[in-house]
Amino acid sequence: MGETSPERSEHLTAHSMAARQREISVSEFFLKNRHLLGFDTPSKALVTTVKEAVDNALDACEDAGILPEIRVKISNRHDIFRVAVEDNGPGIVENQIARIFGKLLYGSKFHKLSQSRGQQGMGISAAGMYAQLTTGKPMRILSRVAGEELAWELLVSIDTKKNQPDIHKKRQAEWDRPHGTRVAAEMTGRYEKGPRSVETYLKQTAIANPHVTIVYENPHKELTRFERSVEKLPRRPKEIKPHPDGIELGRLIQMLSSTPSKTLLHFLEDEFCRVGRTTARKIIEQAGKRLSERSYPKHVAHAQATALHRALQTTQISAPPTTCIAPIGEPTLLEGLRKELPADFYIVTTRPPSVYRGNPFVVEVGIAYGRPGGAGLEVDEAGHIQKTKKNLRASAEPAAVRADNSARLLRFANRVPLLYQQSGCAITKSVIQTNWRAYGLRQAKGGLPNAPMAILVHIASVWVPYTSESKEAIASYPEILKEIKLGLQQCGRQLATRLRRETHLQQEFDKRAYIEKFLPHIADAMQHILKLEDDERDLAVKQLDEILHKSRSK
Amino acid sequence: MGETSPERSEHLTAHSMAARQREISVSEFFLKNRHLLGFDTPSKALVTTVKEAVDNALDACEDAGILPEIRVKISNRHDIFRVAVEDNGPGIVENQIARIFGKLLYGSKFHKLSQSRGQQGMGISAAGMYAQLTTGKPMRILSRVAGEELAWELLVSIDTKKNQPDIHKKRQAEWDRPHGTRVAAEMTGRYEKGPRSVETYLKQTAIANPHVTIVYENPHKELTRFERSVEKLPRRPKEIKPHPDGIELGRLIQMLSSTPSKTLLHFLEDEFCRVGRTTARKIIEQAGKRLSERSYPKHVAHAQATALHRALQTTQISAPPTTCIAPIGEPTLLEGLRKELPADFYIVTTRPPSVYRGNPFVVEVGIAYGRPGGAGLEVDEAGHIQKTKKNLRASAEPAAVRADNSARLLRFANRVPLLYQQSGCAITKSVIQTNWRAYGLRQAKGGLPNAPMAILVHIASVWVPYTSESKEAIASYPEILKEIKLGLQQCGRQLATRLRRETHLQQEFDKRAYIEKFLPHIADAMQHILKLEDDERDLAVKQLDEILHKSRSK
Repeated sequence: MGETSPERSEHLTAHSMAARQREISVSEFFLKNRHLLGFDTPSKALVTTVKEAVDNALDACEDAGILPEIRVKISNRHDIFRVAVEDNGPGIVENQIARIFGKLLYGSKFHKLSQSRGQQGMGISAAGMYAQLTTGKPMRILSRVAGEELAWELLVSIDTKKNQPDIHKKRQAEWDRPHGTRVAAEMTGRYEKGPRSVETYLKQTAIANPHVTIVYENPHKELTRFERSVEKLPRRPKEIKPHPDGIELGRLIQMLSSTPSKTLLHFLEDEFCRVGRTTARKIIEQAGKRLSERSYPKHVAHAQATALHRALQTTQISAPPTTCIAPIGEPTLLEGLRKELPADFYIVTTRPPSVYRGNPFVVEVGIAYGRPGGAGLEVDEAGHIQKTKKNLRASAEPAAVRADNSARLLRFANRVPLLYQQSGCAITKSVIQTNWRAYGLRQAKGGLPNAPMAILVHIASVWVPYTSESKEAIASYPEILKEIKLGLQQCGRQLATRLRRETHLQQEFDKRAYIEKFLPHIADAMQHILKLEDDERDLAVKQLDEILHKSRSK
Repeated sequence: MGETSPERSEHLTAHSMAARQREISVSEFFLKNRHLLGFDTPSKALVTTVKEAVDNALDACEDAGILPEIRVKISNRHDIFRVAVEDNGPGIVENQIARIFGKLLYGSKFHKLSQSRGQQGMGISAAGMYAQLTTGKPMRILSRVAGEELAWELLVSIDTKKNQPDIHKKRQAEWDRPHGTRVAAEMTGRYEKGPRSVETYLKQTAIANPHVTIVYENPHKELTRFERSVEKLPRRPKEIKPHPDGIELGRLIQMLSSTPSKTLLHFLEDEFCRVGRTTARKIIEQAGKRLSERSYPKHVAHAQATALHRALQTTQISAPPTTCIAPIGEPTLLEGLRKELPADFYIVTTRPPSVYRGNPFVVEVGIAYGRPGGAGLEVDEAGHIQKTKKNLRASAEPAAVRADNSARLLRFANRVPLLYQQSGCAITKSVIQTNWRAYGLRQAKGGLPNAPMAILVHIASVWVPYTSESKEAIASYPEILKEIKLGLQQCGRQLATRLRRETHLQQEFDKRAYIEKFLPHIADAMQHILKLEDDERDLAVKQLDEILHKSRSK
């Protein structure tokens, strides 16, 4: 039996240890740690694969200025699932296809600072690697570049020992789409419904991306269409240079040594965002250490770099431009919430941009409160409280309410829904640390608020710090926690005002109903005591009624 | 100002996108995602650096059969911290030093299946990368291999664009240690006390590694010694082949294509643990598809591999050998708990080995219950309940009690304490999902049990699936969750028995105290009524007392 080699149990020396040192390929690493990329369980593997493919498709369409139309199809045979995702994007140039789908850490988004869904160059290759691991089959990619006669079809797997693509087949093919990409992979999976399913991912994608149309066919061959409600692409985020706030000394040293700028003044102006000539001069003066505008960046010594770093952190520099980030925006967010989460009322806010470690980011918060139809009361034109007429929606599914009565949390990063690792996410921590009792809600210690509501939090950034490569939760950088809390508090205050009004309305309605119930009896008694005629009685009652009404509105 | 290049805001085509595709070096990736490696905040960076260096030191000492003696020293000047960790290990061969400390994904532990603290070949290089990022300074390594005249001293940093070491200085040096390694790095940090501090990490390391001596000097120059209480190294875990349970099809296909074995029979016998000749024959027969003992592994077709895979999963194969894992063991665990966590009583259990995805693992659970001295009662030799005499320790710090009254959780993986990401860890989930009310404790829904106790859970495995590269929490594989729960339940049942006895004892003691209080009055009354002499009275009282005592022991 092969389980032990006898020499293995003996002690090692420095030399025998040295002989065992080896390089580890990044693919080998993630194959062994596939849970880091979101492939720990068969049901999660399906969701992750759809997510990575759809995220790529949306990024490509938006970069090319195309309104995205995505088709997602999952089919299965004997527990082997085939996931196919097709887009109307610009297509992929043939010589890039193999590396994009068959190599980890290869992509176009890592080295730039602008908001996109993908940022690592790993997701879709990881899906292929998981497919290969569980069924041994390569991914099938079909892609046609606009203007080209034919599409290319490739079968690609990953040589995990080298982290290089293996091309099994490559041919040109007819495709009725003028341009676009389709990727298909076969893998072990499990199809589930519920809060962490392909359906939920697509539905939440529709909330944060109302400009996208998605057609989804599930393994039972049921078709769901998520139609776009906005006919315009979001503003395309511009690429920026790093902002000096929170930039690390080591990064500054690296930038100094690799800049093409010939003077320190130009270096500061060219390599950072929001640093103009005046600011640059101020920074250099502040740094001291015999640095001047004309210092040659590559010759800046360690002590000088340290001083420059300190000056960058202490000089007042304006906040980064908002052009590098495309938040969903309050009207669109409201639109998305209304469409997918029927509720009594909505509150949304988009915070001004902020910065962590030199990376700008924007926090958006949305609240969908109450069952549709709410308390069912409204004040009519005459100032009387009425049962509301738009109560029609009251029978709709109360999407915001969870079984245990705690608020439902919808987390997004760069418009991508985050379905897993809720407890480890900065968004969850911020919601829990916010004092919702101050806004009239119940909240257990260390828990989400208990209220019939959904809280949506979106973080848009040029670089989202995820807690793992599977991009399921956001790391708890203090600047990010702070911004989310400010957004929550802003919405919380509006919520409290609204709830106070609603409570007041309900109390008044109850009082009013009470008055109306007893008024006839009072009328009869008055008539009897004061010996009134019927019309005198009616007049008296009417006056009494109005007086009581007026007392309410005071 | 340099924040936007105008062309960036225009739409891209497939060709302009292709021009932006680039390879991402693994160092660049982790530099940008340094929180994935445990370097998100200055205080965590200090703990992580100490942890990575100490883990490496312990692994090296144990591999070389040396009882570890570790010195950890943290000093600071103007918020720049210098962390130095020194061991008495076997030293590192000179030509390996630069790569071990200056390259990510380089190591000796990734490609083998046996329990060790390190497994990724990233931790210590990541600490160096963080040092470099925050202070711009390289790491300083001093190492002497046993038998060599001089030590080597190297200054190493990482060229992050290439993921290769940069050697700034290399020289031979005198060192009074006959063998060992010292690594020192300077970084931005923050020194804190509390549950997630260097102190806590070292203290918990001492609990799980009673064979280790650690001397720690903190930035205030205070010295703490954690002395070993066991003079023997743990049994050295043997390296094993993968176990067939849960092995993926893709991995099997890869093994088939790369094996040196010439026949399927030999392949199964040689490449898997717990597969002997009889089992191998059974598997081949079960697989069918015209596979035979003499089939050439490299020629096994996809459909045949699928059948073989199914046969491997359905054939009964004995559990993996325990030799590949070195759990702490019940006596040593008890020893460790007693030494560092004074409590009323202790319960420990080591579970039998289990397997996830072909990787054997063992779960150990320890409970330290109650304040030292406990209820403070005991039954003496005569069967009388007494205030316990060993109440001396009652004044000791009640280490198991947390401010909010919930149990304190100590998580370990391969003898390494896990201090961060408690909420995202499989251990925490298992404790929360266990019904502690069944064992007489209070427990809020979705929370830890509320009791004055500490729960220790240790997972030892040939490959621990962490939720991130920072190795702070364990991924929730179902097999692992199940095993932890079984361990917790086992301890829970013992705890319940013990608590019932204790409750009973307390009740009896109260009753007894009551009797003793009123007995003199009864005696006086009897004497008065029956006109007894004093000695008659005393005799009657004594008899009465004994009768009452007897009734208790029934």
